[in-house]
Amino acid sequence: MTFAIGVDIGGTKIAAGLVSEAGEIIEAASEPTPDDATKIPRIVADLVDRLTGDEKPVGVGIGAAGFVGEDRATVRFAPNIAWAEEPLAEHVRAFVDLPIVVENDANAAAWGEFRFGAGEDTDDLLLITLGTGIGGGIVHRGRLFRGGFGVAAEIGHMRVVPDGILCGCGQHGCYEQYGSGSALVRAARERVANDDPAAGAIARLADGDPGRITGPALTQLAREGDPLAVDLLMDLGRWVGEGAAVLATILDPSVIAIGGGVAAAGELLLTSVVEAFESHLPARAHRPEAALRLAALGNSAGIIGAADLARVDPV
Amino acid sequence: MTFAIGVDIGGTKIAAGLVSEAGEIIEAASEPTPDDATKIPRIVADLVDRLTGDEKPVGVGIGAAGFVGEDRATVRFAPNIAWAEEPLAEHVRAFVDLPIVVENDANAAAWGEFRFGAGEDTDDLLLITLGTGIGGGIVHRGRLFRGGFGVAAEIGHMRVVPDGILCGCGQHGCYEQYGSGSALVRAARERVANDDPAAGAIARLADGDPGRITGPALTQLAREGDPLAVDLLMDLGRWVGEGAAVLATILDPSVIAIGGGVAAAGELLLTSVVEAFESHLPARAHRPEAALRLAALGNSAGIIGAADLARVDPV
Amino acid sequence: MTFAIGVDIGGTKIAAGLVSEAGEIIEAASEPTPDDATKIPRIVADLVDRLTGDEKPVGVGIGAAGFVGEDRATVRFAPNIAWAEEPLAEHVRAFVDLPIVVENDANAAAWGEFRFGAGEDTDDLLLITLGTGIGGGIVHRGRLFRGGFGVAAEIGHMRVVPDGILCGCGQHGCYEQYGSGSALVRAARERVANDDPAAGAIARLADGDPGRITGPALTQLAREGDPLAVDLLMDLGRWVGEGAAVLATILDPSVIAIGGGVAAAGELLLTSVVEAFESHLPARAHRPEAALRLAALGNSAGIIGAADLARVDPV
Amino acid sequence: MTFAIGVDIGGTKIAAGLVSEAGEIIEAASEPTPDDATKIPRIVADLVDRLTGDEKPVGVGIGAAGFVGEDRATVRFAPNIAWAEEPLAEHVRAFVDLPIVVENDANAAAWGEFRFGAGEDTDDLLLITLGTGIGGGIVHRGRLFRGGFGVAAEIGHMRVVPDGILCGCGQHGCYEQYGSGSALVRAARERVANDDPAAGAIARLADGDPGRITGPALTQLAREGDPLAVDLLMDLGRWVGEGAAVLATILDPSVIAIGGGVAAAGELLLTSVVEAFESHLPARAHRPEAALRLAALGNSAGIIGAADLARVDPV
Repeated sequence: MTFAIGVDIGGTKIAAGLVSEAGEIIEAASEPTPDDATKIPRIVADLVDRLTGDEKPVGVGIGAAGFVGEDRATVRFAPNIAWAEEPLAEHVRAFVDLPIVVENDANAAAWGEFRFGAGEDTDDLLLITLGTGIGGGIVHRGRLFRGGFGVAAEIGHMRVVPDGILCGCGQHGCYEQYGSGSALVRAARERVANDDPAAGAIARLADGDPGRITGPALTQLAREGDPLAVDLLMDLGRWVGEGAAVLATILDPSVIAIGGGVAAAGELLLTSVVEAFESHLPARAHRPEAALRLAALGNSAGIIGAADLARVDPV
Repeated sequence: MTFAIGVDIGGTKIAAGLVSEAGEIIEAASEPTPDDATKIPRIVADLVDRLTGDEKPVGVGIGAAGFVGEDRATVRFAPNIAWAEEPLAEHVRAFVDLPIVVENDANAAAWGEFRFGAGEDTDDLLLITLGTGIGGGIVHRGRLFRGGFGVAAEIGHMRVVPDGILCGCGQHGCYEQYGSGSALVRAARERVANDDPAAGAIARLADGDPGRITGPALTQLAREGDPLAVDLLMDLGRWVGEGAAVLATILDPSVIAIGGGVAAAGELLLTSVVEAFESHLPARAHRPEAALRLAALGNSAGIIGAADLARVDPV
Repeated sequence: MTFAIGVDIGGTKIAAGLVSEAGEIIEAASEPTPDDATKIPRIVADLVDRLTGDEKPVGVGIGAAGFVGEDRATVRFAPNIAWAEEPLAEHVRAFVDLPIVVENDANAAAWGEFRFGAGEDTDDLLLITLGTGIGGGIVHRGRLFRGGFGVAAEIGHMRVVPDGILCGCGQHGCYEQYGSGSALVRAARERVANDDPAAGAIARLADGDPGRITGPALTQLAREGDPLAVDLLMDLGRWVGEGAAVLATILDPSVIAIGGGVAAAGELLLTSVVEAFESHLPARAHRPEAALRLAALGNSAGIIGAADLARVDPV
Repeated sequence: MTFAIGVDIGGTKIAAGLVSEAGEIIEAASEPTPDDATKIPRIVADLVDRLTGDEKPVGVGIGAAGFVGEDRATVRFAPNIAWAEEPLAEHVRAFVDLPIVVENDANAAAWGEFRFGAGEDTDDLLLITLGTGIGGGIVHRGRLFRGGFGVAAEIGHMRVVPDGILCGCGQHGCYEQYGSGSALVRAARERVANDDPAAGAIARLADGDPGRITGPALTQLAREGDPLAVDLLMDLGRWVGEGAAVLATILDPSVIAIGGGVAAAGELLLTSVVEAFESHLPARAHRPEAALRLAALGNSAGIIGAADLARVDPV
C-alpha cells in the first residue's frame, strides 16, 4: 500500500491529509491561511512533514481555488489569495523533496468523487459544488477535463441571465449569482429587509444583524421545516437544476454530482434540482439522461482527489 | 496512401466523398435525401460503390444530424429524418463490406477542422457551426469529446435567455434562437413587417414574399454594405460571441472556429463575434484567451471529418 | 330610470345588452361576427333595434378589441378584424339615431368594473384581463385613462423579458406571452410533447390532439386537483403577479382587479398572483399596497362598461 | 403678476427659487442639505424668507425625492434622507405663513416641463429623468398623474430584466440599474477593471482611482469623440429607449421628454434612445407615436414645477 498527500488551500484554511490508495484519509492536519501569501508554500511543506510517517508518500497533490496553468504547477490567478502567475509547485518543492502536482480545487474534488465517491461507477462525471460560489469539475472517459489552458469547468461564471446580477468576475448574470450559497443568503436578507411577513423565523435568526443569516443557518431552518427557508432553498435548487441542464446539453455527463456546503441540505435541495433539470433538458424524450446525485465525500473530496492526482496522470 | 469515404446525411442531400489521408476530397458524389428514411442505407451504399475505385477504402464514416449513440453506430433521434434508434451502421453494412462509423454531423465537422482545417495547430478545438440552427463539436487533447451517452456538444440548445424564444426542441431561450441563420432571417422579416424605414433594401429583396428573405441573401446584402443588413449581422455576431464566451468558460478551448453557412459572411461577422466574446469572458485579464477563427473547410468539413473518423479511433 | 346599450365586438361574437343606470343588464342579444367587416355596423344597429323597447336608450357604447382613436369614434387598428382607420361610430350612426361612443374593449371593461364591480369602492383601478392575450384598463381619479392618442393601457405588450418569446405584435417578450391563457396552453402542450411523466391527466385530455388542451380545460383540471395543472396555473400566476408589480410601480392603483377567462380559476390563481406581486413590489415596506381582487362582472364587464360610457364623459 | 416659491430638496443641496407666473426664476438661493433631517424645515423656511421680497408669494411648492402621500403634505419615505411619514408641510408651516404643497421631485419637474418646457404644446407628457437613478413624472390630460396613494411614476424601479442586477430598493432588474448615470459609470469601470484595450481614455481619466470615472466626465469624453465613451452612451440610450417603449405601451403619452444630468449628452444620447424606442414599440405601424425630446428646463425644472404646483390644483 502506498500513500499520497492531498492539500486543499482555501481562503481561510489550508487543510491536508495523508491518503491511501483506496482514497481513505489516514491522518489529517490543517493551518489557517496566512494573510501574507508568500508564506503559504512553507505552511504546505510543514503540513506535509507533519503527515509524513515512516513511509515516504509517493507525491503531494495541491488543490487551490483559482486558475491553474496547463503545467499543473502554476497558479495564474486566485480570487481570494494575492497570487499572480505563482509557481506554487516550485516554491513548495524548495522545502519538500516529492513530486508536486497543482490542480484547481473543484477539479481535484471532481477527481476525488470520480475515483472514490459519487462517480465511482461512471467514466463521465460532472461535479457541481455549491458553496460561497459555484465550482465545477469534469471527468470525461475517465480523464480529467482541463481545457486548452488548464482553466476549464469554471461553471460558476457561465452566464445564465443576460444583463443579470453583477458578479465579482466583472461580468453580469453568472450562474453563481443565482445558485450558490451566497445567492441563498442574499435572497433571505432581501426578504427580511422588505419586512416579508413570512420571514419571521429568518428575522429572529438575524436578530437585527443580517450577518447572522448564513447559508448553514438557512439550511438548518429549512430542515426544521420553516416554510420560507424551504421555499428559498427550492428556488435555489431550481436555478441549480436549470444550469445543470445547460451543462448536460454541452457536456452530456452520465452522472452529475452536487457537492459543496449547500449540498448539506440533502434531498430537500436535490428534489428541486432534479425537477428543474428534467423539465429544462432539450429533446428530453429522445436522449438518455444523466443521473443526479449528492456528492459522497463532503469536504474531503478536494484532499482525496488532490492526493490521487499526485499518483496518476489523469489527463 | 490509403483512402476512406466520408458521408454527410443532411435533410435535403446525402453528400459523400473519397478522402485521402491528407484530408483531400479526391472524388465527390451526392443524392437527394429520400422522404422514405428506410431507403437511406441503400443510397449510402450506392454512393460508396460509386466512389470506390481500384483501391478498397479503409472504411466509411457517416455524419448525421441528430443524437448518435455511444456505440457510434446507432442514430437515436434525428430532428429532420424519421429515425428512432436506427441501427444505421448495421443497415449500411448489409450492402457494404467495410468498417462503418457513425458520428453526429457537427462532431464530424469539428474533427475535420481539427485534423485538416482551422484547428490543425491545436489539441483543443471548439467548432461552432452557424446554419439553420447551431451545431457544435469539441476536441479535447486531440480526442473527440462525445460525452457519456454520445450526445455532447449540443450547444445550439444551451439556454442563453431564461424564458426566451420558444425552440423546436420544446425549451425556451436556446442559443440557436439567437445566433443562427434562422434568427438572422427572423429579425430581418420582423423589420420588414414593422415597416422599418431602414429596411428598404431587404423589403425590395422580399418583393412581397418574406420567404425570399434568406440567410444567404442577407449575407450578400451585408457584403454590399446595406446598413440594416450589416446591423443585423453584427447583432447576430454579438449573440454568437456572448455564447462563445459561455462555452469558453466551461470548455476552455485554445481555438474556437466559426463555421456553417452564416460564416460565409466572413470578417464582417467575425469582428462582431470577437468583440462580444472578449467583453464577456469572465476574469479576462487573468487567463489566456481562445483564438477565434473562421472555419477552413467550408461545407466539406463533415465529409472530410467523417472519413477520417473511419480511420482513427478518436475518443 | 334611463337605459343605455352596450356592445362588445369580439373576434367571434358581437354581444350587446340593454343596461340600466345601476349597471344591470336588462336584456341581452348577440350575433356571430361576420367575416366581412363592412357588415358589422349594420349588425350592431340591428342588435340596438332589437334591444330598444318602449323607452329610447340615451346612447350606445361600443367596445372593440384594438386601438381606438382619441375621438372615441374611430378604430385605428384591430388585431382580429380587417379594419384600418374605421369610422365605426359614423357607420353605425347611419342606421341608428343615437349618440355613439367607441372604446377599447378592455378600457370599457375596466370602466364597468370601476362603476359597478371590483372597483366600486375606489377611484384608482387597474383591470388586468387574462384571456387569449392580456388586456388592461386604467381608471385614475375616477376618470378613464386613455392616453395622448387613445391607445393607453396596452399592458399585454409591455416587455417583461428582453429577447423573450416572439409575440404577434412583432416584438419579443410581451407580458401576454407569459401570463395569458395562451401561455398556459403552450406550457401544457410542451409538457405533453416532452412526455413529462407528470402530464398524464393533461395527455389524456389531449387524447392525441393537442388542440384539445385549452385554457378552460386546464383550469378545470386544476380545480380538480391535478398536480401539474395546479403547478402550471401557479407558474402563470407568478408571471401575472410580477407584471402587476411593474404596473403598480408605474401606475400606483388602489385596486388591481384580475378578470378575463383565466380568472375563472379563482382563488387558486389569485393566491399565486398576490404572492408574486408582494414579493416583487419595490420598497414595499415604505408604501401602501394595492388590493388585488378577482374582477366581479365576468364576461359582461365590457357591455356594462360600454353602456355606461355612453352616458358619462369619463375622461 | 404673482409669484410662488419652488423648493427642490435633494440629497446634497436644498435649492429654491422665486418663480413668476410665466415659469421664470426671478431669484434663486440654496443651502447644503444637513445631516440632521429635522433641521430641513427650518432651512426651507429661511430660504423662503430670503426669497420673499415686497410682494408676498402665493404659496410654496416643495419637491423631494421619495414617496409623497396623497395628502401632498407628507413624505412617507425618502431614499437619501432619514424621514419616515414626515409631515413636511406642517413642519415648514410652523415657520412660514403660506400655503405649502409637497410633491415628489420628478413629478414636480414633469409639471414644470409640461407648463413651461418640453411639454408646453401637449396635454400628455411623460418625463424621464436620467441621473444617479431614474425618475419619472406623468401628466395626463393636463393633470398630474399621482396614482391612488401618491406614489405613481416610480419608473426607475420598473423591472426590465427578470433576475437582473440587484437594486437598492431590494428588487432585481430595475430600469435604473440599466439606464441611469450610475449604470453608465458602472459599465465604464468594468471596462477599465477588465483592462479593455479600448478603455485607454477612460483609464487615463481614472488615473488609478475608479472614483474619478463619473457620469459628467464620461459624457464629456463622449462629446470629445472617445469611441468607447460614445459606445457606452449609445448602449445606455438603448436601454433608455427600450424602457421608454414599455412606458409608451402603458401610458401612451404624446411627448416623452428626457431630462436629468445624463441628458446633457444631448443629441448623441437622444439618437440612440429614439432608435431603440422606435424599434421596440409594439404594433408600431398602426399607432401614432410619441415625440421624443430633450427636456428644456435643465436643473430648474423641479423648482419651477414645484412653484407652479403651489399655484394650481394639478390633479
